[in-house]
Amino acid sequence: MASGLGEVGKDALRGEALAPMARVVTIGDELLTGERVDGNAGWLARRLTDLGFRVTGLESAGDREEDIGEALSRAVSVADLVVVTGGLGPTLDDRTREGVARQWGLSLDESPALVEEMRARFRARGYHDLPAANRRVARVPQGAQVLPNPEGSSPGLWIELPPGATEPTPVILLPGVPREMEAIMAGAAGSAIAHGFQERLAPARSILVYTTGIPESVLAGRVEALVGDDLDVEVAYRPSLRGVEMRLSARGSGAEERLTRARSLLHDALGSHLYHAPSGNLAEAVGKALESRGLRVAVAESCTGGRVLGRLTDISGSSRWVVGGVVAYSNRIKEEWLKVPPALLEAQGAVSQGVVEEMAQGVRTRMGVEVGLAITGIAGPTGATPGKPVGTVWFGVSGPAGLHSERVRFGGGREEVRERAAQHGLHLILQAVSAP
Amino acid sequence: MASGLGEVGKDALRGEALAPMARVVTIGDELLTGERVDGNAGWLARRLTDLGFRVTGLESAGDREEDIGEALSRAVSVADLVVVTGGLGPTLDDRTREGVARQWGLSLDESPALVEEMRARFRARGYHDLPAANRRVARVPQGAQVLPNPEGSSPGLWIELPPGATEPTPVILLPGVPREMEAIMAGAAGSAIAHGFQERLAPARSILVYTTGIPESVLAGRVEALVGDDLDVEVAYRPSLRGVEMRLSARGSGAEERLTRARSLLHDALGSHLYHAPSGNLAEAVGKALESRGLRVAVAESCTGGRVLGRLTDISGSSRWVVGGVVAYSNRIKEEWLKVPPALLEAQGAVSQGVVEEMAQGVRTRMGVEVGLAITGIAGPTGATPGKPVGTVWFGVSGPAGLHSERVRFGGGREEVRERAAQHGLHLILQAVSAP
Repeated sequence: MASGLGEVGKDALRGEALAPMARVVTIGDELLTGERVDGNAGWLARRLTDLGFRVTGLESAGDREEDIGEALSRAVSVADLVVVTGGLGPTLDDRTREGVARQWGLSLDESPALVEEMRARFRARGYHDLPAANRRVARVPQGAQVLPNPEGSSPGLWIELPPGATEPTPVILLPGVPREMEAIMAGAAGSAIAHGFQERLAPARSILVYTTGIPESVLAGRVEALVGDDLDVEVAYRPSLRGVEMRLSARGSGAEERLTRARSLLHDALGSHLYHAPSGNLAEAVGKALESRGLRVAVAESCTGGRVLGRLTDISGSSRWVVGGVVAYSNRIKEEWLKVPPALLEAQGAVSQGVVEEMAQGVRTRMGVEVGLAITGIAGPTGATPGKPVGTVWFGVSGPAGLHSERVRFGGGREEVRERAAQHGLHLILQAVSAP
Repeated sequence: MASGLGEVGKDALRGEALAPMARVVTIGDELLTGERVDGNAGWLARRLTDLGFRVTGLESAGDREEDIGEALSRAVSVADLVVVTGGLGPTLDDRTREGVARQWGLSLDESPALVEEMRARFRARGYHDLPAANRRVARVPQGAQVLPNPEGSSPGLWIELPPGATEPTPVILLPGVPREMEAIMAGAAGSAIAHGFQERLAPARSILVYTTGIPESVLAGRVEALVGDDLDVEVAYRPSLRGVEMRLSARGSGAEERLTRARSLLHDALGSHLYHAPSGNLAEAVGKALESRGLRVAVAESCTGGRVLGRLTDISGSSRWVVGGVVAYSNRIKEEWLKVPPALLEAQGAVSQGVVEEMAQGVRTRMGVEVGLAITGIAGPTGATPGKPVGTVWFGVSGPAGLHSERVRFGGGREEVRERAAQHGLHLILQAVSAP
């Protein structure tokens, strides 16, 4: 366990100690009941990180003035910049302005310029006059600057809090409508941030590296040995049923070179577990490998029921390298459509090496392509037989390098088995096609 | 603007003023950089609200022990229950346990029982022994109870903080993998909450109603006319590419009856747009309808590339009513496997009424089932021809009531077209099978 001091020392080396700290506060009762998914917090977190801030916290508070005031007060006390979204609209439950005014004892005055601007906007839309409710959005807390909203009627605000402090914290208030929030950040708020923090911002460089077929803990062991302290590259892991995505990031001088070096070390060490795809989707890497070699694939799926085909055809332009396939969810379809001998099905069962090999060859030759993938297994929860527990899946690939088959036993429930099996099938196509 | 007192009055009427307060804390640097969208906070907010808590704040903190400790300390000081996700995994950046131990000066001891359990789990998956990294997850802060994780190796924890306080706040620590977090909440954590808060919780009653093929704005107009003020039922809409999920909720006396009445009104008004499936998945409703009538389906997919088959076979037990299908991503497969006449393909093109009808009949008769669905269209971004813009999709259903075909033009990009088309195809099976 790293000590607190060690921690700070490491951060300082990475230049993070110098990065100004930002906090994001999102306002709205609907966030606290889970009725609305908060996309703004994540969007702002990424934007501020990219700008070179270290985001130290995200917080959501309800619509009550006290709660808003307290959340902002907490944020202002620990951050160099606070960005707030929500509660600036025209309805009565929009109280972010009131929350600020109340917390710091500021007056809230209607801006005649804003009223005039809104009146013009409403007239242009064919309304006779500004609805009374909308005048609420023209009120500006004492000392705040208006950040124009090109997409709507509620402007953003920039205010330094606490008022009169020697080193006040800039607080940016933005409407909660994502389009409007993003437009103000791209415009007036972005400019104000650049102006206020210019010299203190040193954006991090980062790259994403995708792996499949290797558990997070095993991967982390290997990676930490490779890109540890020497390279000063930070690694974050994002595991899913499809594999583990790694984000490598570095700051300071030579960051770019250290990342390139780290990627190349990982490439050598992880072999076929590492794949290249801008989207992070293994199917994209499969498509590229097939297309670059002028090969086409067809797939025969049983337990994955169309998932591999679905993933392949997700990729735009996939008709150049996938012709189609068969979902053979019954033995009869395996016999009639893939020419699996009934005697083989009878003797070995549908989930067997013999059957999967026949399926792979059957779909390849009958669909007239160079690569055939077949998958047959027991996704569960039912269907297990003695010696073939739930999660048992046979894979077969018939391709340029001949016929390959293997059995894997996946853990987890039906959904997990199907998702992992589809991913494994894609990985096998990639390996068969990439073989030297 | 409603006065503060008015607010409290309203809450008290709903019994909310008495509701215990909960806070959610999500842990992870990847949340603060915006790399990962935080779905856990919203999920927990909704779950806790349903259980009868008033959620007063959501907060995300980074992976550093100090930050975790401070965020938890703040939450514990203002809430009756704190639920934390993230930072319980095996890698070195998982430090929630350490953050708790450090903040409150607790020891962190390895649990021999947990180590043994994990060792068995890894052996069952074919590993010789437990990777060293995984032992990290077996450490338990002094005084914490283990909440078993049925979906993974990192258990949840229940700990009352500050230790030794007369009225400590229960804190639930959960892993950040959504599947695991949800499973523990459904299991041990849920039971512990029920046990600890039983008498103080006045949960809302709620039901979910699923619709497809009707836009949110049209739906909301119809629904509000039906279940407005009279029934005192609140409606929340959750739109997705597959349809709109409505959550109907009510509190107080007769809540159950008012919800039943609302559902029945909606059922009459929305016709086939409303479907019944405990999982919310239309494919489940399709499966039930087929099975109850003793029918089996086969599918021929072009632009959806296996998605319909994938959705059907997602359902456990689907082999009773889906035999399989063909993904015909090239014209040759349509000709050879589905017996679409080459002259028809030549004359009308692959995306045409004639071709989709042949595909539907071809897959039904050649797979020997009672219902055949066919889909052919232009998912984009390329492939548009004069008169057939991107998003044009032909559907054909060959079933007990004869042959039906229709054309739909979907908006949006490739992913949206494919997802909406697959959903529409499922809806057509349901309608064909449910027809009187």
